[in-house]
Amino acid sequence: MSAVAEDGPLQDPAALASTARQLLVAAGMTSEMAEDVAAVLLEADLLGHRTHGLSMLPNYLERIERGATACKGDLEVLADGGASFAWRANRLPGAWVMRRAIREVLARVTSHPVITATIADCAHIGALQAYLKPITDEGLFVTLATTDPGLASVAPFGGAEPVLTSNPVAYGIPTLGDPILIDHSTSVVSNGSIAAYATRGERTPGPWLLDGQGHPSDDPACLGQEPPGTIALLGGPEFGYKGFGFSLMVEALSLGLSGHGRSTAPSRGGQGVFLQVIDPAAFAGREAFLRETTALAERCRASRPRAGGPPVRLPGERALANRARHLAEGLPYSRQVLDSITDWARRLGVEKGL
Amino acid sequence: MSAVAEDGPLQDPAALASTARQLLVAAGMTSEMAEDVAAVLLEADLLGHRTHGLSMLPNYLERIERGATACKGDLEVLADGGASFAWRANRLPGAWVMRRAIREVLARVTSHPVITATIADCAHIGALQAYLKPITDEGLFVTLATTDPGLASVAPFGGAEPVLTSNPVAYGIPTLGDPILIDHSTSVVSNGSIAAYATRGERTPGPWLLDGQGHPSDDPACLGQEPPGTIALLGGPEFGYKGFGFSLMVEALSLGLSGHGRSTAPSRGGQGVFLQVIDPAAFAGREAFLRETTALAERCRASRPRAGGPPVRLPGERALANRARHLAEGLPYSRQVLDSITDWARRLGVEKGL
Repeated sequence: MSAVAEDGPLQDPAALASTARQLLVAAGMTSEMAEDVAAVLLEADLLGHRTHGLSMLPNYLERIERGATACKGDLEVLADGGASFAWRANRLPGAWVMRRAIREVLARVTSHPVITATIADCAHIGALQAYLKPITDEGLFVTLATTDPGLASVAPFGGAEPVLTSNPVAYGIPTLGDPILIDHSTSVVSNGSIAAYATRGERTPGPWLLDGQGHPSDDPACLGQEPPGTIALLGGPEFGYKGFGFSLMVEALSLGLSGHGRSTAPSRGGQGVFLQVIDPAAFAGREAFLRETTALAERCRASRPRAGGPPVRLPGERALANRARHLAEGLPYSRQVLDSITDWARRLGVEKGL
Repeated sequence: MSAVAEDGPLQDPAALASTARQLLVAAGMTSEMAEDVAAVLLEADLLGHRTHGLSMLPNYLERIERGATACKGDLEVLADGGASFAWRANRLPGAWVMRRAIREVLARVTSHPVITATIADCAHIGALQAYLKPITDEGLFVTLATTDPGLASVAPFGGAEPVLTSNPVAYGIPTLGDPILIDHSTSVVSNGSIAAYATRGERTPGPWLLDGQGHPSDDPACLGQEPPGTIALLGGPEFGYKGFGFSLMVEALSLGLSGHGRSTAPSRGGQGVFLQVIDPAAFAGREAFLRETTALAERCRASRPRAGGPPVRLPGERALANRARHLAEGLPYSRQVLDSITDWARRLGVEKGL
C-alpha cells in the first residue's frame, strides 16, 4: 500500500468521516454499515495507507450502485463451535462484517483462549492494519489474512500465468509499549500500488513485475497485455518460492477454510477472510509474553542502523505516528479525490460537498 | 536448507537409522528418544534437507556429551486448557518432544477443531518439514514455527546488528493429492546454508548477507568478523521489511507465547516452538477445503512456466519425490559425514561403523 493523494489541502478527519457516512447511507447502506465502512476507510488514511483510504469511496459507491456490494441481507452462519465460527457474508460490506466478527471474537476469547473465524465472500475489507489495534489493545495476538478469489495478478513461483493475487496477511503483536502491527502482501507490492504507477504512467522503481513470458519487468502496463504479466512474488526470481509459500498459506486459510475459493471462478469483489486471536494467558502467561515481545521490540529499536541509515523502525511504528499526526493536523487529500467525492455527493443528493 | 554431502556412496536408510539409534542410546538417550531423533534426522535426509539430516548426528552427540541436550527428566506442563497447552522441555531432545506434542495434538483435535501448543526450551527439532505429513495425512492444516533465542544472525530491517535468526515457519496444506508442505526461513537462507558456504570457502551466489555496516555482501566470513555481519532478510534491501514482519511473527509465536525468549539472553541450543493444527471440518467443511486446495494446486501446476523454465512445482513436491527416490535407491552421503559417524561409533563403543 503506497502513497497516493498526499499532497492536497488538509481536511478534518471527523468531517470527512461524516461525509463518507452520508454518502454510503444515500447509496443504500444502513447507518451501522456506513459507520463501519467510513471508519475503516478513514483509519487506513490515518495510518498512511492512502490507496486503501477514502480514495476508495467512489469505487465503493459504484460497487453498491451496480449491486456488487450488498446492503441488505444477513450473515449466514456456516458453522459455530464456540472457539471457532464460519460465516458467509454474500458480499455484505467488508468493514461491517469484519467489525462484527471482531466483536464476536473478543466476546468469545474470555471463554476460549484461541478463537478462529473465517468469512466467505464479503465485500472489500480494506486495509488489514486498520483492524489490529483494538485487538492488541486487549493484550491478544492476532492473525488476519484475506484474498479475493475473483482476482488473479500473481503467478506461482516459476510460472508466467496469474493464478494468485497479492494475498496480504497481517499480524498484531502486543507489547508493553506500542503494538507491532504487521500488514503486507506476499507479492512484492499490492495491486493498488501497481495501479497507482500505471495511473501515473510511471515505471516501477525496480523489476516488480514479470511480463507475460515471466521475464522481470518494470512496466505496470504489462498486466493488461496479452498474455498478461504478473506482479512478482516476495523474494523475487531467487527466493520467490518463499513468497509463494506464504501466498499459498493465505489462500488455504482465507479461501480453503472459508470454502469460497477459486474452484468456482467467482467474480471479483468477494473476499475470503481468516481471523484468529490468541490469548497468551493460556500459554506461558501474559506477563511472560509481554516481557518477551517488549524486549524484542526494544532490542530491534536499539540495534545499530545500517551505515548512513535512519534508526530501525518496527512494523506499524510509522503508521501509528502518521495516525497521531493526522488526527492533530488533519489529512491531506488530492483535489482529484475530493472532486470525485463531491461529484458523488451531488449525484446522491447529499448536500455536503468538499 | 541447501544441499550438502549428496555425492557420496548410496546408503540403506534403514541401516543408517539403526546406527544412529545405537549411537544416540550409547550417548545416553532412552531408546524412545533415540528412535524419534534418528527418524526425524533421516526423514530430513529423505526429503532432501541434507543440512538437517544425519550430517547433524555428530553435533547432536557432542551436545549430549557436554550436557547441552538433556537425556533425562520430563516435560513440564506450564498450562493446559484442552484446546491449548504449553510445555517447557528443558533441553530434552527436540524430535522426541515434537513427536509427543504431535501425538497429543492429533488426539485432542477430535474434540476441539483448533489445537494450539507451545514448547519452551527444547533441544534442536531439526527440519520442520519432516513433521508435517503425518498431520496433513489426517486432513488437517498445520502451522509450525520455531527459533532459538540463543542465536542471533539476522538484523532487524534497516539495522546492522544481529538480533533475530533465520526464524523458519512451516505450513502443511492437505489436498486430495499430495499435501503442500511449505518450510522456509524468513531470512533469505538458513544459518546452515551459510555455514556450508563458509566451510567450502565459497562466496554466496548473490548478496545474501550484510556486512557489519549493513552493506550487502556475499562473504560468509563476515558473520564472524567484528562488528559481525548478518544474513539478509527475505525481501532484501527493498522489501526486507516483509521478511522482518514474518520473522517477528515467528518470534512472538514461538518465543513470546512459550515464554522462553531473548529477554534473558539464554545460551544457544534451546528452541521455542509454536504448533497449531486446524480441522477444516469446523469451518466450511473438509470437502470444501479440499476442493479449494486441490483446485489451487492443480491451477498452479497447470500454469504456463516462465519462458525456458521447468514446470511449476508446489512447495514440498520435490521433497516428496526425493523421499520416494531415496527410499527406493538409497541415500548418498559424503565420506566426511560417514567417517565422522564411524569415529563416534568407535568412541562410544558401538560396533557398527559405516
